[in-house]
This record gives sequence, structure tokens and C-alpha cells, in this order.
Amino acid sequence: MNLNRVMPAQGKDRILPENRPQNTLDRVDVVIVGAGVIGLACAWRAAQAGMAVRVIERSEPGSGASGVAAGMLAPVGEATWGEEELLDAALASHGMWAEFAGELAEAGRAETSLLRNGALHVALDADEAGELRRRFDLMSSLGLEAEWLTGRECRSLEPGLGPSVFAGVHAPHESGVDPAAIVSALRRACESEGVEIVTGMPVTGALRDGDAIRGVVTEDGAAHPADSTILAAGAWSGSAPWLPAAALPPVRPVKGQILTLRGAAADPAAGRIVVSERVYLVPRSDGRLIAGATVEEMGFDTRVTAGGVFELLREAYRALPDVAELELERVVAGLRPGTPDNAPLVGAGALDGLVLATGHFRNGILLAPLTAQGIVALLQGEALPPALGVADPARFEKVTT
Amino acid sequence: MNLNRVMPAQGKDRILPENRPQNTLDRVDVVIVGAGVIGLACAWRAAQAGMAVRVIERSEPGSGASGVAAGMLAPVGEATWGEEELLDAALASHGMWAEFAGELAEAGRAETSLLRNGALHVALDADEAGELRRRFDLMSSLGLEAEWLTGRECRSLEPGLGPSVFAGVHAPHESGVDPAAIVSALRRACESEGVEIVTGMPVTGALRDGDAIRGVVTEDGAAHPADSTILAAGAWSGSAPWLPAAALPPVRPVKGQILTLRGAAADPAAGRIVVSERVYLVPRSDGRLIAGATVEEMGFDTRVTAGGVFELLREAYRALPDVAELELERVVAGLRPGTPDNAPLVGAGALDGLVLATGHFRNGILLAPLTAQGIVALLQGEALPPALGVADPARFEKVTT
Repeated sequence: MNLNRVMPAQGKDRILPENRPQNTLDRVDVVIVGAGVIGLACAWRAAQAGMAVRVIERSEPGSGASGVAAGMLAPVGEATWGEEELLDAALASHGMWAEFAGELAEAGRAETSLLRNGALHVALDADEAGELRRRFDLMSSLGLEAEWLTGRECRSLEPGLGPSVFAGVHAPHESGVDPAAIVSALRRACESEGVEIVTGMPVTGALRDGDAIRGVVTEDGAAHPADSTILAAGAWSGSAPWLPAAALPPVRPVKGQILTLRGAAADPAAGRIVVSERVYLVPRSDGRLIAGATVEEMGFDTRVTAGGVFELLREAYRALPDVAELELERVVAGLRPGTPDNAPLVGAGALDGLVLATGHFRNGILLAPLTAQGIVALLQGEALPPALGVADPARFEKVTT
Repeated sequence: MNLNRVMPAQGKDRILPENRPQNTLDRVDVVIVGAGVIGLACAWRAAQAGMAVRVIERSEPGSGASGVAAGMLAPVGEATWGEEELLDAALASHGMWAEFAGELAEAGRAETSLLRNGALHVALDADEAGELRRRFDLMSSLGLEAEWLTGRECRSLEPGLGPSVFAGVHAPHESGVDPAAIVSALRRACESEGVEIVTGMPVTGALRDGDAIRGVVTEDGAAHPADSTILAAGAWSGSAPWLPAAALPPVRPVKGQILTLRGAAADPAAGRIVVSERVYLVPRSDGRLIAGATVEEMGFDTRVTAGGVFELLREAYRALPDVAELELERVVAGLRPGTPDNAPLVGAGALDGLVLATGHFRNGILLAPLTAQGIVALLQGEALPPALGVADPARFEKVTT
């Protein structure tokens, strides 16, 4: 129940009494609700394009899914039947990441930790090998660069793999980043482009002009007038209290639990991303190994559970037995923004002035460069990149109205 | 390497230059090094007997093994071959706990959370059942109160038990306490008896009078003269830098990792302590369930490891499948004070004036009342309780000299 929900307004700039602003800040071109990797990437690119941008974050930047994500940039291994269009988007954004990371490292004066060692997708028994083989055939039919390896060849590439590894697919161009480093770099890059970032401040209302939205109102009573309002609130996008129900996108929280293991940087448990049917293991250059992630339909529940941690540890151990010796440094649960078809929502929202950049589910880090490019194109009145066709919010119009 | 180790001194009150005190505090009857459950219990009882007592703790009270222990008071289940004398001590101290807890709750103005629901020791397969049956026969031959149950009878008593539970031993008089609550209560009880508790202060030297010890010197340069000096430093007792090597007891750190799970107090995963061959599960009245503990020879290593947590979760899940749904609230590793024969060291040390109250390994909480009683008897020149015969430090004299 969202008691503060703004009802559809009819008059000009009509807002509910409890959300009436006490002061009005300078108008900006774009106000972005949410300072995760998506919101910050959009803000940075929009500011670079000359727009005045303000980002409003209810907590700290990266405190949602961005702060929990493993940062795997592995579109090839994600290839699955019926999601070929999503794969196009993933591949397009993956192709943008090296330049994005390089530019961001410079603008954000930070190490963005892009690790480009490829990924090894492994099958831990004959059944899993059959499934992986069918996915490999799909990858091949889609023209993706990937190589089938025997168990022995897998262990030769990645000597820490367990004896049960039966076969694998090597995707040499897959990579990983540290999302926490990306958030920090994006924040600095935004600030150096003049983006205002307001933190610890929930959005509680909207500035309405008939059916249009012309900015937001924050909990402190400040009005933030803007030509465009971007909803980039991750898992909370589907229940934003400042949007009328009919304008809420079909985004739900999908819980993920994830572990940070720590070993010696000089002797990593794995040299590249290792993915099995039930766990992925993403090495960082400092000796950390991220093991993720559960996928749970639990609503807004971020409890770490014995069962979730057990499953991750068991599967990590099956793939890479040496993880047993690693320090368990952090266990955390986050909420991904899920959508009915697992594809994001990037484009015009259901109200004039409302723009959606949300619903990235398991692919928010990967899709950030493409999403930001698409949002800037939209804000400039240009066509979205074709690869974002899968993300058109209009596909759910019947659902949301 | 203990560079600050005090070498055996020859002259009266001779101390090494780096440990020369800058000021001398009031002489007390007893100075106790270590404010764990053992040190505090000894302090409380000694003060009650009219002695002036000062406890010196390098960190916070209960920051060693006491802060990690599950608080299981289950001597029957611990019965094993060759440790019958230790069992005598455990049973004697177990018999003292109800009164100890009651008196402490009053003196410490605190809930000591003594849970008296008994314990169920379960076998998860036929092999484990054979082993448990042999231990049950031992319990019976020792006259311990325990009952053999079939798997079905176990599940009738404890419906959350997994389907693989094959048989069990019900020990109805076993119980558990929350060691954190005990530490808090002991601290208040001590203070109300006039015990001085000095925290955050390492002991760096000893006040020597020939072969005798007459108190300690702390890092701040203060001398603490005392007739008796009690070493109650837990896992650190074997490497106390202020004792000559020949007076160090054979105590080594034995690492234990332990989990705190949290469920609803109204719907506990177990109504009593559940113990399998590889894990014990101790319920608290507030819905927590403590799952412990690994036993690892790793020196002074308190890292939480993936393998340790995995093993505890796996075994907890085998015994009580519902734990999968519980929140994993805390994971921590501590260091038990281990000895060559697993029995404690309670009695006169190798120097005149030195008293040992250490080496309690996995039984520190259980043995606290008996240990404190024995220490007070010793300080008053009386004989130790016969049940503490197993703890006589003299049994290692050949080892320590």
C-alpha cells in the first residue's frame, strides 16, 4: 500500500496537498530518480550532451542492485531460447563496455577494474553437459564466439576446476567489472559534468501538468521541475509512490543472494569467470571472488538465508573446490528489477515527460552503456538504437493501463 | 614469537626494563588476567568470599571464546571413551548451573536465559546410529540419564527433524545458556561486589619476587600488585607474553566457526538442543538458533571460511531441513583454549602466586561454576573439589619444564 501515491491529476500542475512543495528549485532539463548504475550512466551521458541534470537518490548511490551485482559482462553465456532479441541488446552493450570503461576511468579518475579474461561455462555432470551442448549449438547458430571444451581442456585452462567438470564452453571475450568501482567512477564523472546528485532523499510526489509529468517533489518539500523525468529506481520502479498506478511499469523485485569470498591476489582460485548451471564465480583483481546468485520471488525481502548461502557455497565448491579455503567476507541480498519477459524498459513512459530506464533484471551492469545511449537519444528527440527494440515499454501497454 | 616475554627473574621484584612500571596501583588480593566467562566467574565468586579483586582484559569482556560459544550445557552427549574423569567434572558443574544462573540473574539484574528443554542427540544414517548406540551404551554404563529413541520417536519429540534421522538419544536434563547474557550478568554481578574491571588493557609484564609472581604490569605502565595472579586468558594463555616460557601452560588455540540463524520466536525450528555427529543446534528463546562448530587447528586464525560455513549449513540442513528458511544473521570464528588431553587447567601454576583457570577447550561455559568454586577454594587455602582432579595443572609438569 502506497499511501502517498499521487492520483492522476486533472488540472494544471495539480498535486495532492500532502505533496505540495514548500520551495521550488531551479528547473533542469532532466531529473533522474535513482542513482544506481543505470541512473548515473544516463545522467553522465545526458550531461555530456549538454543537458542540465539532477539525480535524486533516496539512499546512497549504488545502494540497490548495483551494490550487490557481480558485474559479469557475459552475454554469450546468457544466450537462451526465445531471448534472441535481448541477446542483441546484450551484445551491443557488451561491445560498448571497453570504451565506456576507458572513458569512465578517465572522467571518474578511478580504476574501473574491467577484467577481460573471458568466461568458462562448465557442466558438472553428463546431464548438465547435454544442456550446455544444446546451448552451445544455439550460440553457434547465432554466430557467437565460443569454443566447446572437454573436461580435460577445461581443467587445462582453469586448473582449479573440480574433477566433476564434464565439459565446458569457453567464451574468450566475456569480461567483468566491479560495480562498486563503476558507481564511484560514475558519481565522480557526473559531478565533473555538473550533474547535481541529491542523496538520502525520497521522491514523494510528481509535478503534473494535465496528463504530463514535469518533475518531482521530494520528501523535504522541494519541487524539482524538469522537462523530462527518468524513472531509474530499479526494483522499486514498479511501486514508485509518486506515479499514478496506470503509469507504473510492470517491474517487480527479484531477490538475489550473493557472496564475496577472499583469497590471495597472487594465487586466485580462478583466472576467469567460471559459470555453472547454478552459480557464477567472478574473480576480481584484488583476490576477491564473487559467487552469485540466487533468484527468488520473495517480494521486498533482503534477508540472507541459510538455504541461499548453502546453495551458493555448495555449487561454488562443486565447480572450484579451492573455494573452501577462501575467507567468506560478505553475504548480502539485493533486489533485481524483474519484468514479465526479462527484458528492460528503456523508452517513453505512460505519461508525457516520463522516461523509463529500468527493469534490467540480471543485466543492469551489462546494459548500462546501451541504455544511457538510448536515453540520451530519446531526450534529444532522436531514434533509439535498434538493439534497444526489445526494451520498448510500449510492449506492456495493455498490462499497465 | 613473543618479543615482550618476561624472562625468569632472579632478584626480588626484578623486572625487565621495558616493563618497569611507571606507577603502582593499590594492592589487591587477586588480579585476574582475562574477562571471559571463566575469569569473570572466578572474580565474582572470589569477591563474594571477601577478596579484593581486579580483572584486567586486553579487549572487552567476553571478546574471546565466550563471545562465540553456543552455551550448550550438555555433558551427557559429550560422554566419550577415555574422558570419564572430564565427564565427572562436566556433570558436577552441570549440577551447579541452575543455582549459579539463578543467583547470577539476581546479582547481575539480568535474564541469563537458561533454557532447560533437554537435548536430542541424533544419528543421520545407519553408520552414525551404530556409533551413537555405542556411546549410548557408554552413557548407560556410566549411569547417565538418557533414553534411546527410534527415528520416529525422535520426530515425534522434535517434528522439524529431517527424514534421514535414523535414531537418537534423548538427554532430558541437558540445557543451554546464552553466553553473551552470562558475560553481561557476570560483569554487573562483579561490579556490584566491588570487583574492578579494567578493559582494553593488555598485560605486558609481571611483578616478580624471586621465583614468585606478585601481580602484573599493564601496557600503560601501571603495576598491579596482588597476592595471587590468575591466568584466565583463554586461547592466549599458552603464549602470555608476561610469563616465563617455563610457566606457560600447554594451551593452544583451536578455531571454531559458528553461525547464528534467526527465525520467529513463536515458531522455533527446534524446541530443544539438537546434536548430530557433525553439528549442534542450540535454540535461544528469542528465535535464534546457534549452529556450531568447526574444530580446526589453524593457530590464531579467526577468518570465516567458505568451507567452514558450508559444512555447518549442510549438517544443520540434514538434521533440521527448516533451517534453510532461517535468516543467516551472524557468522563468526573464535578460538578455544585447547590442551593436550582436552581437560582444563585449574589449580596452582608453575610459579608461586600464579593460578591457572584456563584450557577449557569446548567446555568453558559448562565448567565455569565448578572452576570458580575450585579457584576460590584454592585462594582460601582449601582443597579443590574432587571433580576438578582431572584439571590439575601438575599433570603437565614434565611438558612445561
